[in-house]
Order: sequence, then C-alpha cells, then structure tokens
Amino acid sequence: MSTLHDPGTPFAVVDRNRLRTNVTRLRDRLKPHGVILRPHVKTAKSIDVARLVFDGGPGPITVSTLAEAEAFADAGFTDITYAVGIDPHKLPRVRALYDRGVTVTVLLDSLAQAVAVAECGVPALIEVDCDGHRGGVAPMADDLLTIGEHLASRGCLEGVLLHAGESYFAYTPGEMAAAAANEREVAVRAATRLREAGLTVPTVSIGSTPTAHALDHRSDLTGITEVRAGNYVFFDLVMAGIGVCALDDLALSVVVTVIGHQPGRVLTDGGWMATSRDRGTARQPVDQGYGLVSTLDGTLLPGLRMTDASQEHGTLTTSSGELPDLPLGTRLRILPNHACATAAQHRGYTVVDGNLDITGTWPRVQGW
Amino acid sequence: MSTLHDPGTPFAVVDRNRLRTNVTRLRDRLKPHGVILRPHVKTAKSIDVARLVFDGGPGPITVSTLAEAEAFADAGFTDITYAVGIDPHKLPRVRALYDRGVTVTVLLDSLAQAVAVAECGVPALIEVDCDGHRGGVAPMADDLLTIGEHLASRGCLEGVLLHAGESYFAYTPGEMAAAAANEREVAVRAATRLREAGLTVPTVSIGSTPTAHALDHRSDLTGITEVRAGNYVFFDLVMAGIGVCALDDLALSVVVTVIGHQPGRVLTDGGWMATSRDRGTARQPVDQGYGLVSTLDGTLLPGLRMTDASQEHGTLTTSSGELPDLPLGTRLRILPNHACATAAQHRGYTVVDGNLDITGTWPRVQGW
Repeated sequence: MSTLHDPGTPFAVVDRNRLRTNVTRLRDRLKPHGVILRPHVKTAKSIDVARLVFDGGPGPITVSTLAEAEAFADAGFTDITYAVGIDPHKLPRVRALYDRGVTVTVLLDSLAQAVAVAECGVPALIEVDCDGHRGGVAPMADDLLTIGEHLASRGCLEGVLLHAGESYFAYTPGEMAAAAANEREVAVRAATRLREAGLTVPTVSIGSTPTAHALDHRSDLTGITEVRAGNYVFFDLVMAGIGVCALDDLALSVVVTVIGHQPGRVLTDGGWMATSRDRGTARQPVDQGYGLVSTLDGTLLPGLRMTDASQEHGTLTTSSGELPDLPLGTRLRILPNHACATAAQHRGYTVVDGNLDITGTWPRVQGW
Repeated sequence: MSTLHDPGTPFAVVDRNRLRTNVTRLRDRLKPHGVILRPHVKTAKSIDVARLVFDGGPGPITVSTLAEAEAFADAGFTDITYAVGIDPHKLPRVRALYDRGVTVTVLLDSLAQAVAVAECGVPALIEVDCDGHRGGVAPMADDLLTIGEHLASRGCLEGVLLHAGESYFAYTPGEMAAAAANEREVAVRAATRLREAGLTVPTVSIGSTPTAHALDHRSDLTGITEVRAGNYVFFDLVMAGIGVCALDDLALSVVVTVIGHQPGRVLTDGGWMATSRDRGTARQPVDQGYGLVSTLDGTLLPGLRMTDASQEHGTLTTSSGELPDLPLGTRLRILPNHACATAAQHRGYTVVDGNLDITGTWPRVQGW
C-alpha cells in the first residue's frame, strides 16, 4: 500500500474520517428541523464526496457551474439547483439536462431572466437579497411579484433562494445567530408575499456553511424547506476563524516538501499553484497567511505559517524567527485558508483515513 | 466560424496578434547581446505558445514543474531547465527523461541536494541569491564552492542561475535598471568564484520578465550566457503597473457575461474561479482590484473595475458609482492582475487574432 510519502508533491489530501465527521455533524444538526439538506458541491466538486454525503443516494445537490450539473447528472444525481444567476445563453444546456430527466432549477433576480427562463420551460428560484452581499431582489420590491407572476404563468416558479453572505463576517455567536435569523426572516417574508399574491411557492431555500452551523435544536426554521451548505465537508481556516469548526475538523490539506532553507525561512515546493492565492484570513482577527503547517501525520507545528508564495515556492516562517528542524525532503501539510479555492488548484484528491496510508484517489469536476 | 459570442462563459482568451508582438519585442531586445533566450513556459503552459515563441523550434525552455518537463519533452523539447529547487524524491522522474535523451537541468542551493543530484547523474545549476527574495546561496558563501566542487567532481555542474525577485517591486526605470544590473553583477561574481576554483561554468543564467525588459542595446550583459523570462508572452496588470508593458500589450483576458445588476454594481459570471484570487496590484500604487474591464472587442471601459469576487460571481464597480449600460447577457473581458495565476484557472485558451473570430483552442499542461 502506498502512503503520503509516495506521490510527487505538492498534492491535495482528504482525510475521509474527518470528512465523515463533518458530514454527520451537519446532518444531525438539521434532523430535528425536518428540512431538506441540499449540499453545495462546489467545494469538493467530487462525485465520491457527494456519494459519501448521501450514503450513495442521488442528492439533492446545489452546483455552481453547468459542468458540475452535467457531471453529477451523469453520475445519477437528478435534482440539482444551479445557484448562480442564470445567463440566458446557458439555458440550452439546462434544457438538454431537463430533456434527459434531470431537473436543474435555475436562479434569477430580473424580469429579463424570467422571460428567458419561462420561454425555455425550466423551473426557477427567485434570488432574494438579505444583506447586500451579492445578487437578489429586495424582499419588499415590486420586482419580486412581477418576476414571480411571470414565472408562475408558465409553470416555472419553484420558490425563493437566499445566501447570507454577511455570515462570513460574523465573529461572535450572537452575530452569527443574527445573520441566520435575518436570512430566515427575509426568506419567509418573500415567500409570504408571493403566496399572498396567489402564487405557489414550494421551495424556500436558505443556507451558507456558517448559518447552517449556527442552527441548534432550539432554532426556529418555520417556513424554511431546505438548507444549503458546501464548505462544511472540508472546512478551512476561515471557518475556524469565525468559530464554525475546530482546526481538528479540517479535512483538506496540501502535502508539500521542504526544498530549501534561508535565514528565518523554510522553502517548500508548494506555492500558490498548490494553495491558491486565497488570503481569506487576512480580513479576520488572526491572519493565517497562506495557511498553517502540520507534520505529515497531522500534528500542528505551533507558530509556523506559510507566509509567502510564488508560483511553485512556499515560504514558512514563525513570528519569533525560530524554526523547527525540518531537513531537506521533509513532507509537511498546509492547512488552507479557503478549501474551495485550494481544492480548485488540484485535479483530484489523495484519500487517507486518519493515518498515512492512501486508500483512494478521487477526481474533481473541472471547468464550466 | 464561431466567435467570442459562442462558448459558454467564463473562458480564457488569447489574442495571438498581441502574443506575437510580445514575443518579437523581447527577441529583438536580446538580439544585440548574443545571449540565449530560455523562456519560462510556466505562464502559458502551452505547447502551442512555445512553438510560436520558437517558430516551431525545440527550445530551450524553463519549466516550473516536472509535469511541464514531461509534456514538453513529449512535444519534442529536449533542453529544459527545471527552475525550482530540486526535491531529491523527484530525481527518478528527471533521470527517466535524461534516459530518453531529454536534458532536464535541475536547480539547487544546498550540499544535501548536490549529493543527491550527483548520485543521480543529471546536470545542475546552483541557485545564487541576489536580493533575498526566495532561495539561493549567497554569492560569497563558502557553500557555493563546496556545492560546485561536489557537482563538478561527478560532471554535474552546469552553472549558476539567479532570479531578481526584487524587480517586481521596482517602480521607476532607475530602480528597474538597478535590479537588472545587480542581478548581472551577482551572477558574474558567483561564476567567477567557481571558475577561480578551477571549475567549468558553461551557463550563467539570469532573468525575470521585468529585468529582461529593462535591457536595451546599451546594457552590459558581459558574462551572461542566457536570459529567462516567462510572463512577457501574455503580460498583465502587475507588469503594466511597473511600466514593463502597456495595457494594449495584454494578450490574455477572461470573457464573462453580465448576469445581474445591483445599485452601484454589475454582477458577472466570472468569479475568482475564472480570474484567480491573485490581487497582485494591491501592493502597487494603483490597485486594479481583480482586474480592468473591456468590451468583448477589447475596448477598455474607463473607470470600471472588477472589485470583488466570489467563486462564480464577479462584481464590477466604478469609483464614481456611475455605471455604463451593460444589459443582461453582455459579454465583457477582464484583464487580469497576474497572467500566470489567471491562466492556471483554465484548462486551455480560446484563440483570436485581433478580432472576435475564434481561430483555435490551445490546451494547457496541468498538475505536477
């Protein structure tokens, strides 16, 4: 059996034990609420990860690209929400999936999109803005009803969808709970307005990894039919920085090799090509650079950070300037700021189950 | 014939006319100096781009990964410098190429690496540090001679290599000329020390896109045998920001589609997955956000910038808050901060020749 000492570095590794724990935790958290969990597969972009999430079942899932929709459709997933505002030019690909028996529900926030979608005859969710972070119609805007009525007139209105972008900047449990409550309230308000106009609104979808993890058994999810979350399968330093997970929950890391030493610095063969340029923790109270560093077996090396990167070079430093003894050829693991971005730098994952033995390789969906 | 209106967005586009101009400019600049140009293929990672650079010839080239070395070897390139400090674990792949008749010269800056490389029997360059930005031995260090003598004793000493990382922070022609002169002087000093110790030093290699473009016919390159540069085939906003190129030289861009409107913001389907998270201009006097924006035919939209990104959403804003009329479905081009990082987000390039007609698609080498 090969181990993490064998593949050429850098490479991405997933600890399946941690992945299972993360998946079970959110499933258990949502169970008392009777809502559907529609995980966002954009983080892992892996059929294997999705099969683990659903114990082999066919979804439902959320995707960020039509390439994901097509790849997951090929793998048997038939209930897919494409959660990026629809470009009408992409509708023929959506319709082609529909004609194969795969429902791809699209997202929109304008009448121009609704007209194109109704013409194409596929189901749509109206994106509703709850915190000004991305797209969506305001919950009390006239547009909400105009769009809803146009979609409903062609049998295309599936419901409303919200994404609490603000939750990524919530640093206390109170702020997080407020972001989650706001997301729910705005969703219910928008759905209620549509229903009061006589429209049928089967789906009221909310979600983000932070707000989904702010839920407990006392949380009120009345009026919500489904929750989305994506990052939680892997977690990362940004999520740890806002208290959504512990460092021991991080299931994705990048294995790198020490290739040089300079005064106060250790150089590795893992640059931004392996970690991404994501510096998500730079906006948090604790800036983790390009990532924290552990030994190959996962023991965190206290104080050591990847603080600089060129394309294929990583620079490890400590704030004290004192460095652990890491001879040429030593393999280390970098814990990433942002799992979605780091994973995107790799074509697949090397899989382990809590130790160094490699038990599988999982490909990723690429492109658009 | 299909045009840039046809492929699903986002996608990377290369303007071959600009690419040719960039390639010719550097070739002409180096001609009077009689040095070898060994372009770094890590930016484009494209056999097609390299063939254009060499008019179909077989190199020589510089690579950043063994995956590049292997792919370019398969395409007939036989003289390759792998310019990242060698991890001894990677030597069997280097040796396998050597045994196929492909010379992969490796890079090192420690005796431990030199011992492994000499054992493997492949040629090596000693990395010499000229400005403290990455790896390399100091030009006057004892290590330089110790390493050189060990390599030479096994017939493995090819020469010295430097990379003027400091040049990326040179904002005036004077600073740039100083970085270039320092790189040359340190290179010659190191080579001279090795030669005075009785060693043969065939190659004295310097280079970076900024310092290579700081050369003119009056520059002194005495003692230098080859110059490397990579980014210049595409250029980007970082290079424009330090005056190495003009905005009209940028040969790589990303085509995106307008998918929504919010007060003061236009949303597109090109997020950081399409542009990368690179914010290289953030450290420059003018921060270009995630990139400047042009119409599909390449006309810059003054004042418009991509100022925020999520995975598959780009946010375009202006500092005045006034936005051009960009209806749903409008296609735009994003000019990237850092061509190496943006190109790395794509599996290949859509090729045009100065207009909207697509004349080819070029794949990229992926992975390590």
